[in-house]
Amino acid sequence: MLDICLLGTGGMTPMPHRWLTSLMIRSEGSNILIDCGEGTQIALKEVGWSPKSIDVMCFTHYHADHISGLPGMLLNMSNADRTEPVVMIGPKGLFNVVKSLRCIAPELTFELRFIELDQNTEEYRLGPYILKCFKVKHNVPCYGYSAVVPRKGKFDPEAAKAAGIPVSCWSRLQNGEIIRDAESGKTFRPEMVIGPERRGIKITYTTDTRPCQNIVNAASDSDIFICEGMYGDPDCLEKARAYKHCTMQEAAHMAAEAQIPPREMWYTHYSPSMTNPRQYIEEMRKIFPAAKCGKDGMIAELNYDD
Amino acid sequence: MLDICLLGTGGMTPMPHRWLTSLMIRSEGSNILIDCGEGTQIALKEVGWSPKSIDVMCFTHYHADHISGLPGMLLNMSNADRTEPVVMIGPKGLFNVVKSLRCIAPELTFELRFIELDQNTEEYRLGPYILKCFKVKHNVPCYGYSAVVPRKGKFDPEAAKAAGIPVSCWSRLQNGEIIRDAESGKTFRPEMVIGPERRGIKITYTTDTRPCQNIVNAASDSDIFICEGMYGDPDCLEKARAYKHCTMQEAAHMAAEAQIPPREMWYTHYSPSMTNPRQYIEEMRKIFPAAKCGKDGMIAELNYDD
Repeated sequence: MLDICLLGTGGMTPMPHRWLTSLMIRSEGSNILIDCGEGTQIALKEVGWSPKSIDVMCFTHYHADHISGLPGMLLNMSNADRTEPVVMIGPKGLFNVVKSLRCIAPELTFELRFIELDQNTEEYRLGPYILKCFKVKHNVPCYGYSAVVPRKGKFDPEAAKAAGIPVSCWSRLQNGEIIRDAESGKTFRPEMVIGPERRGIKITYTTDTRPCQNIVNAASDSDIFICEGMYGDPDCLEKARAYKHCTMQEAAHMAAEAQIPPREMWYTHYSPSMTNPRQYIEEMRKIFPAAKCGKDGMIAELNYDD
Repeated sequence: MLDICLLGTGGMTPMPHRWLTSLMIRSEGSNILIDCGEGTQIALKEVGWSPKSIDVMCFTHYHADHISGLPGMLLNMSNADRTEPVVMIGPKGLFNVVKSLRCIAPELTFELRFIELDQNTEEYRLGPYILKCFKVKHNVPCYGYSAVVPRKGKFDPEAAKAAGIPVSCWSRLQNGEIIRDAESGKTFRPEMVIGPERRGIKITYTTDTRPCQNIVNAASDSDIFICEGMYGDPDCLEKARAYKHCTMQEAAHMAAEAQIPPREMWYTHYSPSMTNPRQYIEEMRKIFPAAKCGKDGMIAELNYDD
């Protein structure tokens, strides 16, 4: 099981009743926060999710609306007596930005560990997640993220019996162990009893970017593809191009082009000038039917198929 | 005329429905913001006051809850195309803290000018204000501020006539000019026709401090004395002493001890644990009858007497 909360949906500047874009992902007690603008800690309090339990903080880039809430969030986690290290991930330069911002949050109860991204795509195993980081196209280095919770293949008791594997070995094989049975001298391997890896759960989040192939690739087979929809009005395309943002139309087209279409797409990172993104959603559904307007505090609980 | 808005009343951490402590003061088109924590820019939007028009930003100290909103506020002012310089005032170290925080707000449309405080009291003339800065007692260097709009003495036309001053000179004398009258060879001085300075308007703001004489002095003759009331429960006195904060009782006693009692006292900077400060207000009024619980967005318009 995995659940997500889109803590905010605003771009550029926080507004009354619209927090800055940020996503929290929770699975198996391990939690990822992507982006942390001014007010994200309040948005988190509003939904009642704990800041203490954030194990990984990802940043798309270092424009203020994506990281200005960091000092307050770190202090909050410290006040909650977190002691486990926190992994910080973002484009090259992360350590220096965090160091600067921490001039007002110098003392923490936990250690920060840094991963700085500079490749086209990078992949990290973090707790239950495979975190896939992909470069996108903004006016500064910027990354999108897919958090994947993989799912093992199905255990086949008939195959285990046929291979003469004692029942006492089954759970160890299910956990990926290779067992040498002293009695029979045989070696039992997980692949003897476990089928091919099954579809897991995949969440993709990207914002502050022009459309690009990396995003189309990442969107593929996502349970939820969360994408910037900075402007809904087609007349804003030139502005989107100039400031390296993405219109709702462009995001819908990326979702539609994915090899395996994402099951849902949520819009986020609305321009402050777009007070009612819902007015465009029917048009967008003509391009990609599973498009939804994200809104602050929107939650989804996702389970494995079947 | 002067108006103020207590933008927030929270201490330590911003909460849903309680912004961090911050005050905006406006007079004659010149505006002062004191403290700017995470979310202060949103609080300002909520009351509909413009960030563009902030001419002076004062900081009591550099704990995150008093300055974490600075990068976002500066960017907002820049997005509003402010071009006039902004005066930044705070304890020694201000330049370095602002420089660090500006790693995510490097480009602004206006210049920042810095005044760093290190004396027991300091006084600056800024636009229509005399800004009086006074050292208070926190666990880091911390200042309180009184913003005074002074008021000239009354013009006395009878005295002007008696001194034989031509009517054409009256308004120049009212503006403080010394006039040498070519015809009569006489010198006319403002003090010949203008009475003693009258009471102006005075706002005092202090937070994050133990009680001290500087605050009692500053509170004296204030129209509104805004003071930390971190805790209302008398049992929290030890905690207040340990963390260098002030209880509601202690603040009321300072107001009561002022040579000329402030006309009103507003509490602010409530602990997140104090959900309803109003429950203590009747007790506080036994100490200082003009005590009020500040609340987010509380506004006052003040005029000269008579």
